[in-house]
Amino acid sequence: METDTDREPLRTRLYVAEPLSGGATVGLDHERAHYLRHVLRLDRGDRVALFNGRDGEWAARIDGFGKGWCSLAVDALRRPQAPEPDLWLLFAPIKRARIDFVAEKAAELGASLVWPVLTRHTDVARVNVDRLRANAIEAAEQCERLTVPELREPARLDQAMRDWPAERVILLCAEAGPVRPIASAVADLAPGPAAILTGPEGGFAKEELDGLLKLPFVVPVGLGPRILRADTAALAALACWQALAGDWAAGGADVRPPFRFQEPG
Amino acid sequence: METDTDREPLRTRLYVAEPLSGGATVGLDHERAHYLRHVLRLDRGDRVALFNGRDGEWAARIDGFGKGWCSLAVDALRRPQAPEPDLWLLFAPIKRARIDFVAEKAAELGASLVWPVLTRHTDVARVNVDRLRANAIEAAEQCERLTVPELREPARLDQAMRDWPAERVILLCAEAGPVRPIASAVADLAPGPAAILTGPEGGFAKEELDGLLKLPFVVPVGLGPRILRADTAALAALACWQALAGDWAAGGADVRPPFRFQEPG
Repeated sequence: METDTDREPLRTRLYVAEPLSGGATVGLDHERAHYLRHVLRLDRGDRVALFNGRDGEWAARIDGFGKGWCSLAVDALRRPQAPEPDLWLLFAPIKRARIDFVAEKAAELGASLVWPVLTRHTDVARVNVDRLRANAIEAAEQCERLTVPELREPARLDQAMRDWPAERVILLCAEAGPVRPIASAVADLAPGPAAILTGPEGGFAKEELDGLLKLPFVVPVGLGPRILRADTAALAALACWQALAGDWAAGGADVRPPFRFQEPG
Repeated sequence: METDTDREPLRTRLYVAEPLSGGATVGLDHERAHYLRHVLRLDRGDRVALFNGRDGEWAARIDGFGKGWCSLAVDALRRPQAPEPDLWLLFAPIKRARIDFVAEKAAELGASLVWPVLTRHTDVARVNVDRLRANAIEAAEQCERLTVPELREPARLDQAMRDWPAERVILLCAEAGPVRPIASAVADLAPGPAAILTGPEGGFAKEELDGLLKLPFVVPVGLGPRILRADTAALAALACWQALAGDWAAGGADVRPPFRFQEPG
């Protein structure tokens, strides 16, 4: 199977649900077909890149356009599926523009799962998960990752903690209590899955924080002396984890990071 | 001089230009007076926190309101001025909503100076520095730092590099060439002032990048395998530098960071 990553840069990358393999056909829905034809002005014969989170990234040729549909013929593997860091983001929802931004940046920063959690002081009653999912997918397409983050329906924080898989460390970004600077906390983590948890703009309630600090998998971390907005804290923490323990550290001969990868598929 | 940081949290923090000392008077202009009186609904006798980037943070009592003015009586020092990290952000301007966000987050992440630089592929012709400055000031007030970032008028990248103070290392976030993972690059820096430089959405032009890589103070750094938007890259890099070499590393007994501080005043 030829790989053609080096032959041509493909500017259009799409996340699809269908299986991908040589000779497969993928159909795009009305919205996407319209986007390719009338916005990107692509035509029969033009090529796009496809990925589905399982089968790697494939090149596909536009086979045909119709009224409200587009057919793609998958032909060449460009990049095989490879492990990606296993890093969740749990955050208390915030106002719309900022929450959209969190979903987008979390995708760029390699979060594997994004989960809105409702805390005592969360002042956003409803979260439009479909919209967040769309933001995350678009960002994943543009940043060239091979997966899209999973977006979970909101849950109450206490519920999320009750059902928490204990092997997944939570780096708690909170403005209280005994915190370790994030860089040293991350450097000392054993390899394994992790999560970032940030609170609402009003902060966690005292009882919430006390409850979190009792949990064995929670590591409270400090993000410096300035008060960070919730969205800033989330992104800063994701970046620090990736830089020190995730896939940013690869590529340098002088750095051997403890990788934490989820299994492909 | 009593310090009263512990006596009462002051929810309103304002950056002012005037000198601050016990017994001083500060006058607020129409816009701010209106904000305090009609938006925050403060009144005579209520207290706010003031800082000017030189004299520390002071508590002040609202002395009086008039039509279009407000007078504050400065009484107690809350926090003395202290060194803050010496970290610049140079970035190629991007679209309005995102550039406002960069100014805000750069302030929260402790940048001491923010400088739009015009590159070959910059597609934003004009930058409203006054608006960016206002965003940065507001963010600085809310994140409780004792300075506000300096906002410089845009300059061409080649001009900025020609006049560059050679002792200030530039961490170049670019999608090309020989990069070191940012965590190891930062960990190996000698103590001293630093800058982050990010490119436009289209990336640097090849000749620009070649020129930058020849400069002795430029360190190209990698931010992982995903293509980051310019605003994401800027914030991620700021966060990583602060976490490893800036003031996020303080407070833990196990970490002795090389601090890079600018002198107060």
